[in-house]
Amino acid sequence: MKMFKTIGLSLIASSLAFGASPLADKAMKSGLVAIPTDKTELLKLTDPNGTITPEKVALGKQLYFEPRLSKSGIISCNTCHNLGLGGTDGVPAAVGHMWTANPHHLNSPTVYNAMFFVAQFWDGRSPHLEDQAQGPMQAAPEMASPIALIEERVNSIPGYVESFKKIYGNDVKINIEKIASTIGVFERTLVTPSRFDDFLNGKEDALNDAEKEGLKVFMDKGCVSCHTGIAVGGKMMPFPMVQPYKYANVGDFKGDKNGMVKVPTLRNITETAPYFHNGAIWSLKEAVQEMGRTQLGQEISDEDASKIVTFLGALKGVKPEVTYPEFPESSASTPKPDFK
Amino acid sequence: MKMFKTIGLSLIASSLAFGASPLADKAMKSGLVAIPTDKTELLKLTDPNGTITPEKVALGKQLYFEPRLSKSGIISCNTCHNLGLGGTDGVPAAVGHMWTANPHHLNSPTVYNAMFFVAQFWDGRSPHLEDQAQGPMQAAPEMASPIALIEERVNSIPGYVESFKKIYGNDVKINIEKIASTIGVFERTLVTPSRFDDFLNGKEDALNDAEKEGLKVFMDKGCVSCHTGIAVGGKMMPFPMVQPYKYANVGDFKGDKNGMVKVPTLRNITETAPYFHNGAIWSLKEAVQEMGRTQLGQEISDEDASKIVTFLGALKGVKPEVTYPEFPESSASTPKPDFK
Repeated sequence: MKMFKTIGLSLIASSLAFGASPLADKAMKSGLVAIPTDKTELLKLTDPNGTITPEKVALGKQLYFEPRLSKSGIISCNTCHNLGLGGTDGVPAAVGHMWTANPHHLNSPTVYNAMFFVAQFWDGRSPHLEDQAQGPMQAAPEMASPIALIEERVNSIPGYVESFKKIYGNDVKINIEKIASTIGVFERTLVTPSRFDDFLNGKEDALNDAEKEGLKVFMDKGCVSCHTGIAVGGKMMPFPMVQPYKYANVGDFKGDKNGMVKVPTLRNITETAPYFHNGAIWSLKEAVQEMGRTQLGQEISDEDASKIVTFLGALKGVKPEVTYPEFPESSASTPKPDFK
Repeated sequence: MKMFKTIGLSLIASSLAFGASPLADKAMKSGLVAIPTDKTELLKLTDPNGTITPEKVALGKQLYFEPRLSKSGIISCNTCHNLGLGGTDGVPAAVGHMWTANPHHLNSPTVYNAMFFVAQFWDGRSPHLEDQAQGPMQAAPEMASPIALIEERVNSIPGYVESFKKIYGNDVKINIEKIASTIGVFERTLVTPSRFDDFLNGKEDALNDAEKEGLKVFMDKGCVSCHTGIAVGGKMMPFPMVQPYKYANVGDFKGDKNGMVKVPTLRNITETAPYFHNGAIWSLKEAVQEMGRTQLGQEISDEDASKIVTFLGALKGVKPEVTYPEFPESSASTPKPDFK
């Protein structure tokens, strides 16, 4: 599969804003990047390979909400990456097929703005959304569908076959790669511009004084060293870096082979509790303080943590309007739901 | 709680259509009723108590899709009454909390056009949607939330409290009745006019010849005696009436105390397999033939069953456009998900 480039996007984007305030200027120099207001500029970032078409987005959206991609027929991508809950499920560890929790006690990361991440999954093992979407469909504690089942289900539904042919041509092979990459195209539309972006884009009063103060603390404490770029996160970093993580005993996740863990985006962070890879902390303020300890080796005071939390609220973005899809009908040959 | 009247609506509605073709006229005389084209007329049927406002619909929609109404935080009304799957889940028996199937092996009925039913649930134990919505939230194998948990969750979410106050006044008591009845208001908007309605409303060519032929067989065989009114079903009837049901051994459901079972709507029936109260039959044609045996005491030939199925396809309706809701954020006091 074609590789989608995401690394380095922040450098392209950071040259877009002009005439910003000194604080916005400082933020951008420290690596924070605005979601561009201009749609063409935004598309350069979300769709560098020019794969997005309205038809693919519509089909990808159907598949994103489609429970028949799961073995049981009742779990969809949206079950764990709920677009109404900040793109997450709001539970500590994802629970899927047969009511099984993620065996490593991993928390579902948000799908919003995920195309800006350097890599996907907590251990960064997937290079982009089009690849990532293959994983949860097959994972035993998630949607639990063998590849053959996924492909047979979709190919047995005439409405889907028609859509794939219309988009990719009559010779299209509707396989796991094609299904997942089409879901990925939909996910590339899930960008959430916020008041913070307005601020970086030159609208000085888009943040209030308390939020500006919080932004200063966020930068001065060093949070910005990892929570950077357009995703305000999304790169791979060692974790824990300085002090041990308080809830290291919850689950057995240790990062990738080098102990690196994907830095979560802070966009919409007020909506995506609980926090950390194992979803062990529900309070955003406590999460900020724990991060201070583990990653920066410092105690962040209650006052400073509250200031940072105030700033983080300004990262709550406007979600794209998503019309709930109607799914095409199964046929007599569609493999039946299997709850075992 | 105020009682919502639904019985007798078909009589009101049947007087609305004029100048129909002889076949449409026969259909209406035999009890079939069109969804009115006129919005005011439709509202008289869907909202006889004048409870629908755009604000209630919006809040009811949020609650309909809201997984935090379930004990686990991952199951919503839409899980089993999926608006993309004809308002059902497409599985034989509903599966919910702790991956538990409905203990009576009952199939999830569609939510579309459900406000036209004489009563709710397979045994008709609930008089209307506003009451019905209380059930699955609490049922152990469905959303499994004790009433206190549901009320505590909603009252702990500031965005919901604000919406309820705005709609019902500052003194509103946000309890299970208020939550369920608001969901019911949203469900009253889920009407799906079809080509069959156009036909009854006077558009002679809305059905093709094969569909008209199927409609004739549908009436001549007597299907229309139970599948009648605006819901093309929805009243309570003895089941099985003449011959035993082939899959009576699946589950233990025997109807209400008089052996009466709710007649499913045939609107959107091509989308809502598997069929019967226990979801035992996947083929619509086989379902038609089994109905012929159990309820009418006759063998419906393959040819006639196919004709009826062709007609039933014309009952597929246009679904209302539903924008996926954004849910308000939990607070520190929101009770946590509980998977046990």
